[in-house]
Amino acid sequence: MATKKELLQHPIRHIDIKQHNVIALVDAMQQMAYSSRDLGRAASIYERMLRDRECGVILCLAGSLISAGLKQIFVDLIRNNMVDAVVSTGANIVDQDFFESLGFKHYIADELLKAGTEDGMLRELMIDRIYDTLIDEEELRICDDTTKIIADSLEARPYSSREFIREMGAYLDKAGKTPEKTGVDGIVYAAYEKDVPIFCPAFSDCSAGFGLVAHQHERGNRPKVSLDSAKDFYEITQLKIANPTTGLLMIGGGVPKNFAQDIVVAADILGSDAPMHKYAIQITVADVRDGALSSSTLKEASSWGKVDTTFEQMVYSEATMALPLITGYAYHKKAYAERPERRWSRLLEPVTA
Amino acid sequence: MATKKELLQHPIRHIDIKQHNVIALVDAMQQMAYSSRDLGRAASIYERMLRDRECGVILCLAGSLISAGLKQIFVDLIRNNMVDAVVSTGANIVDQDFFESLGFKHYIADELLKAGTEDGMLRELMIDRIYDTLIDEEELRICDDTTKIIADSLEARPYSSREFIREMGAYLDKAGKTPEKTGVDGIVYAAYEKDVPIFCPAFSDCSAGFGLVAHQHERGNRPKVSLDSAKDFYEITQLKIANPTTGLLMIGGGVPKNFAQDIVVAADILGSDAPMHKYAIQITVADVRDGALSSSTLKEASSWGKVDTTFEQMVYSEATMALPLITGYAYHKKAYAERPERRWSRLLEPVTA
Amino acid sequence: MATKKELLQHPIRHIDIKQHNVIALVDAMQQMAYSSRDLGRAASIYERMLRDRECGVILCLAGSLISAGLKQIFVDLIRNNMVDAVVSTGANIVDQDFFESLGFKHYIADELLKAGTEDGMLRELMIDRIYDTLIDEEELRICDDTTKIIADSLEARPYSSREFIREMGAYLDKAGKTPEKTGVDGIVYAAYEKDVPIFCPAFSDCSAGFGLVAHQHERGNRPKVSLDSAKDFYEITQLKIANPTTGLLMIGGGVPKNFAQDIVVAADILGSDAPMHKYAIQITVADVRDGALSSSTLKEASSWGKVDTTFEQMVYSEATMALPLITGYAYHKKAYAERPERRWSRLLEPVTA
Amino acid sequence: MATKKELLQHPIRHIDIKQHNVIALVDAMQQMAYSSRDLGRAASIYERMLRDRECGVILCLAGSLISAGLKQIFVDLIRNNMVDAVVSTGANIVDQDFFESLGFKHYIADELLKAGTEDGMLRELMIDRIYDTLIDEEELRICDDTTKIIADSLEARPYSSREFIREMGAYLDKAGKTPEKTGVDGIVYAAYEKDVPIFCPAFSDCSAGFGLVAHQHERGNRPKVSLDSAKDFYEITQLKIANPTTGLLMIGGGVPKNFAQDIVVAADILGSDAPMHKYAIQITVADVRDGALSSSTLKEASSWGKVDTTFEQMVYSEATMALPLITGYAYHKKAYAERPERRWSRLLEPVTA
Repeated sequence: MATKKELLQHPIRHIDIKQHNVIALVDAMQQMAYSSRDLGRAASIYERMLRDRECGVILCLAGSLISAGLKQIFVDLIRNNMVDAVVSTGANIVDQDFFESLGFKHYIADELLKAGTEDGMLRELMIDRIYDTLIDEEELRICDDTTKIIADSLEARPYSSREFIREMGAYLDKAGKTPEKTGVDGIVYAAYEKDVPIFCPAFSDCSAGFGLVAHQHERGNRPKVSLDSAKDFYEITQLKIANPTTGLLMIGGGVPKNFAQDIVVAADILGSDAPMHKYAIQITVADVRDGALSSSTLKEASSWGKVDTTFEQMVYSEATMALPLITGYAYHKKAYAERPERRWSRLLEPVTA
Repeated sequence: MATKKELLQHPIRHIDIKQHNVIALVDAMQQMAYSSRDLGRAASIYERMLRDRECGVILCLAGSLISAGLKQIFVDLIRNNMVDAVVSTGANIVDQDFFESLGFKHYIADELLKAGTEDGMLRELMIDRIYDTLIDEEELRICDDTTKIIADSLEARPYSSREFIREMGAYLDKAGKTPEKTGVDGIVYAAYEKDVPIFCPAFSDCSAGFGLVAHQHERGNRPKVSLDSAKDFYEITQLKIANPTTGLLMIGGGVPKNFAQDIVVAADILGSDAPMHKYAIQITVADVRDGALSSSTLKEASSWGKVDTTFEQMVYSEATMALPLITGYAYHKKAYAERPERRWSRLLEPVTA
Repeated sequence: MATKKELLQHPIRHIDIKQHNVIALVDAMQQMAYSSRDLGRAASIYERMLRDRECGVILCLAGSLISAGLKQIFVDLIRNNMVDAVVSTGANIVDQDFFESLGFKHYIADELLKAGTEDGMLRELMIDRIYDTLIDEEELRICDDTTKIIADSLEARPYSSREFIREMGAYLDKAGKTPEKTGVDGIVYAAYEKDVPIFCPAFSDCSAGFGLVAHQHERGNRPKVSLDSAKDFYEITQLKIANPTTGLLMIGGGVPKNFAQDIVVAADILGSDAPMHKYAIQITVADVRDGALSSSTLKEASSWGKVDTTFEQMVYSEATMALPLITGYAYHKKAYAERPERRWSRLLEPVTA
Repeated sequence: MATKKELLQHPIRHIDIKQHNVIALVDAMQQMAYSSRDLGRAASIYERMLRDRECGVILCLAGSLISAGLKQIFVDLIRNNMVDAVVSTGANIVDQDFFESLGFKHYIADELLKAGTEDGMLRELMIDRIYDTLIDEEELRICDDTTKIIADSLEARPYSSREFIREMGAYLDKAGKTPEKTGVDGIVYAAYEKDVPIFCPAFSDCSAGFGLVAHQHERGNRPKVSLDSAKDFYEITQLKIANPTTGLLMIGGGVPKNFAQDIVVAADILGSDAPMHKYAIQITVADVRDGALSSSTLKEASSWGKVDTTFEQMVYSEATMALPLITGYAYHKKAYAERPERRWSRLLEPVTA
């Protein structure tokens, strides 16, 4: 049997779109067929939404994307003013991004481990597997514990996930887990610095959930931190009301996709005549024919009054292949050059500024 | 252009597994190959978990399942003591099941509408589309409003989604929206009667979210209802601790799958030596190769210490085809006959009883 | 290491649709959504095409269907006059159906073998794997040899695959490999008895190819049997010309689907004003978005003038799940009761009769 | 209604991998997860097989690839000595590549046409659709007619598809349809010049089938050209025997994949102790779980003794996205620089040289 050390040797390296000028390649793809043409059109739409100075850009993340080597892309989008808010599954933000900022890594699994026949052995070694990637579960437990430490330090009241994640950024800052000191940048930290709000509508469904359950268990009947997911929805709706022109860059589907699309309806319910999302891109491998949300087309979303169909594009591709091309195209086109900074966190938390 | 009335003529009818004895058919499928054999094995595992008197059964729902004609199956599972807890997306529970209990219906869309080229017309008619199914958006707004009415009526404090959904059941009872009076049964109501807890870990991401946002907006700085998703996680973990042997029947993936699997780890964090889920079935069309949670295999979950692999089965099929066969098999085998009622809601809310 | 005998213990059993009256189940599926509704509609279209007395029915087979336990369905369709011609991959007809008629079987593979990590061991044991099914390669070599024996016995000239397959039926008859004597029925034999022509447009791409290569190698420059695939196309086009109203029941895509669809155009080229296929059903898991033939929609085929769109239905499902329901529905509805026998083989080979 | 001219305005442009140095991008993908890592590994294996001077490389093509803008890649592989033989569906070679060499083009379809709701209109305009791509059917009929002209000009005897396709190359040469004269290069022509044999094992299933059916119909009982698909199998097996070390670069599955894999077994049957394919790459979107050939893994092929598993890689991606990266990587790495030219057509047809 292999040892833990032998299995956790080769870390995932995050792709750096700044190093790869893909403009000519993506332009060529636009003249072809199938997914390459769709990808080319999606890249153009992303460029267009960045050049639209009225447009606030919301990035939606589902699926294990950080562990897959896409973290640096999201960091670059935040640091280069190419995204104004993030909606994500908790796993990407806490178990994977915050985890790496704490000093841990994801590892390349040997091809044979994908088959799953060795998962019992991994279990014994306390190694967790995500398809072809490995994680040290003992390190993940430290991440769980850290969220408890953060919860313990907060005033007892309901928090939106955004508020809690901002506290995670502040924690990294105080603990010296910053790119300047450790050489490791991350989404939580970059968003903290750039006042980009991050929402996790199912925030208990991740490493933070473990920390919060432990916190609440320990507090018993005493005052405690709670997670108000309705407050998340309320806050993000305020952004739509304040900045009616919006665009979505969605990787995967699930709760983040639905949540971000729903703010159009929520704004309407709050009495604001907000328009549909003007731009929308989704990268997914989900199959449209089961009627599930993850794969529902952006045209379908237009029947719900959520997404306009003039500038929408589904790209049926696994994200590690499509995302570097789409975001790299917009980056090298310098589509962000004239964009105003929005610093939406300040809008939600005026006292922060 | 068609009128709304013309488009909303043919309601979806929910399949009734009690009418279809599929035992011989499913037994035959076990001797074949591919998905039919997997389905046959899944049906056997479901039968086995029901016959295991120690085993608490958790049903996980993701994807638009109620609108698709599967509601009566879930009602029958609850009423026949074939499931002890439910974890679901909010849409299934509120926008679709509670919606139907309020007296509304889902409608069969004409084949041509699937293509999406008529979604602009649907938008104008205030008709929402789910792939091949239509909903009257004006009726859906009534559903949103009803959740606000419920929220307005509650004591201002943090609620788990389970507590709120139980209040939705109580509302139906008080409002006379019961099967006895309207002829329409539903998951929320049956679970209310049978003390089966329902958890929606991303509860703001549905019709209830709209109601709660409106509620919180109106309350402003006054005390208000909030949704504590950490409390959800805490409560469901208590069930695992109280009843260590568990089995999962999962339709789709997403947050419900992850949330239910994670309670094994959460129990461990709370100091309880809970075993992995002993049985696990997942029906999905998700593609394993994007590394996403929805499609991660049950073997992969075993590397995380969440699911035992002796009795696990993935069935790669769209749920409307596979679920009637799997549940119908266990029903007609009378696998539930000797099962103890668990009435887990009482465990979480002793004062209710 | 397991022995060959241990691994080849549990034979695949072919499902018998005659034993399962699925009418009520399939009728219920028509009132639901997604694949079940599509399946219900496909079953209705198959019933309708059988009741249309003008309509000749062509069955198209791609994918490993016989090894998967679907053989008896095709035998029943032939024997009950529910199909008039077959277009197939060679593997289904020779390596799997003829193979079973020679007295061999397919075996259920243990779940763990699916992962592929034991394929080296299987190789050493001379066991071939089809996903979750096993074949004794030594038996398969006997099947290859038998096709050489048949080729050696024939007059040296170009043959259509149909002619060669008919000789395979005659061989079984002469060799006493008949259902009466062995208890094993098959597609090749039933089609031989019922004068249903079978076409394999890529006939060298199967066990028969091995036999024919050996035959041609041995003959060297002497006269030899050759396979004229243009003759196949010519013959099947004659059927379309003789019987202009046609319907397609397609399982999988690939060459059989394209070949059967193309006869409309071929008839036109030969100066016959043949109409498009009036009915068309396809069962497939193929993804439409790669532009490949297997997954091209039947609507797309209508742009080519091949398939009418009034009665067409794609069913996105793995065939072992959908086919027993679709064919069982038409069988129990007795849709074939008034159909005239076509005995199309006689049309192509008048001297046979 | 749009006119034909309006719809056929924007031609597909074939991507030119020589213009895009993707080495750094693909190297970065190897350090990530999921499909990008698989793609990176596939590119390395292709480089490795080209550097192995013993290795003959067989390219397998299924799916509509030429119409999708991939033609120039295959031309470049042939002209730069990066492939030694081609196995393809007929459509790629005749209906699409030869068609373009005759002077015709494929066109970009408007996004809305994908849905299929306008296929009746396309039918009336004699425009054929391949997902998001359009073809002028009147031009396609000229392509059909040209194959008849070629058949009419040949000596009446059985031909392998390879022999016939070589005659198509000679026809282009004689008719002045050469890159020098028209500016349009193609697979058929490049392979003719470079003595790279092309096999279409289901050759009647394409535009050439229409020409040959018309030829045979006109000839009636007189001597005629026939297509001997067994001869195809015999010929390609001779290549394996002459050059035992082989590698496969497969796009899509279907008949080409199976045919090329089967030559290992055929060589064995002819008494030659040929090794398994030493290298194998497949790019596909096919789903492994239906047991079909297109999606059967390369590990599964090793149980059949067809493919060695040391250097094999499946890439689950639509080909227009993955192929430019994989082939571009090997091209820019100059992996072909030291490769010997094989000119395998001469081996099969010594008199040609």
